[in-house]
Amino acid sequence: MRGKLIVLDGSNGAGKSTVLKHIKKHLDANSIEYITTREPGGTEIGDKIRTILLDKSNSAMCSTTELMLFAAGRAQHLNEKITPALEKGIHVISDRFESASVSFQHYGRGLPKETVDQLNDLALGNFRPDMTIILDLDPAIGLKRVKDRGEGLDRMEDIDISFLERARQGYLVQAKNHPNRFKVIDALQPLEGVVHDAITTLDQIIKQPNN
Amino acid sequence: MRGKLIVLDGSNGAGKSTVLKHIKKHLDANSIEYITTREPGGTEIGDKIRTILLDKSNSAMCSTTELMLFAAGRAQHLNEKITPALEKGIHVISDRFESASVSFQHYGRGLPKETVDQLNDLALGNFRPDMTIILDLDPAIGLKRVKDRGEGLDRMEDIDISFLERARQGYLVQAKNHPNRFKVIDALQPLEGVVHDAITTLDQIIKQPNN
Repeated sequence: MRGKLIVLDGSNGAGKSTVLKHIKKHLDANSIEYITTREPGGTEIGDKIRTILLDKSNSAMCSTTELMLFAAGRAQHLNEKITPALEKGIHVISDRFESASVSFQHYGRGLPKETVDQLNDLALGNFRPDMTIILDLDPAIGLKRVKDRGEGLDRMEDIDISFLERARQGYLVQAKNHPNRFKVIDALQPLEGVVHDAITTLDQIIKQPNN
Repeated sequence: MRGKLIVLDGSNGAGKSTVLKHIKKHLDANSIEYITTREPGGTEIGDKIRTILLDKSNSAMCSTTELMLFAAGRAQHLNEKITPALEKGIHVISDRFESASVSFQHYGRGLPKETVDQLNDLALGNFRPDMTIILDLDPAIGLKRVKDRGEGLDRMEDIDISFLERARQGYLVQAKNHPNRFKVIDALQPLEGVVHDAITTLDQIIKQPNN
């Protein structure tokens, strides 16, 4: 049986890393084969692209360049890492994926939706994640959490809050338009609730027969 | 009056750098304002992308990723460097540009022509160089020249010769399809002839009124 790609996405500071830790513990406890990965990045070439994307010294980057760099890394990610794993029956859990480009580059930066879709289509063909779990949170709260952790902001975080609010709405619209492959989880509830909702969704998807 | 973009392109080892040196001397002697630039690269962000593209350790790079990285650098190049110069009436001489993606990623790698065109369109909109000068040479001779110079081959050069031959044909087809904005120069003739042909073409274009 082919593996499933499950994506964790949503606002920065919404708790993706913490939820991922609990998901790994759950999968390990149930002896389910999986790998975790992330975007931008996921491959050696992708990590080099990630460095360019997140480096704050690259503040002159234009939106089209940004979109293409995300897509370039995504094509490599799918070809080199995700598809081979899925074909071996290994599940893949990715921190962000194509939904982030729709949210950040279309809703956030204002690039046309069809341009973002075009790049995602070129990178992925017809392939899309089996499930994208959106950890939904007011970005003002998320950013405060990131700052409280003492982490500096990267180039994609250090943008005005209205950009991050538009990106958040972008996630909610995608989830509304594709209810079968998006699940929104309220990331403001206590952590146990967030983890419970994420693992319940994950288990359902993993048990589903392949299309 | 708006500046013109003139591109020098063609096989590696065909003499682009030498011809460029003579073009600069000619423009300087005639007090014509210009800048020189190159692809991949041309900007700080573009040079970081260039490093990824040419680094031989990135041999796992898939063709779609390669295409998108070239296009990402191109969008930045146009926005940050070329357009501002042209708007000030400064001519831009670029070592390679969008024609190289058609030759190397379509004719060479075999990506669909429409995909390469899509990426060039996203990076450039309707904008295209005023003139692309193709230094045409049998790639076997060009590669020998590169090797004789004692330079190591980069990731885009270290590919089988049939790839480079397909790319060469790609340049010739583009020139045939767009005779008004491509000029093919036989790079096997003595250097003075190559330089003379290139400068004659350049002078014609620079003197043309803007569209």
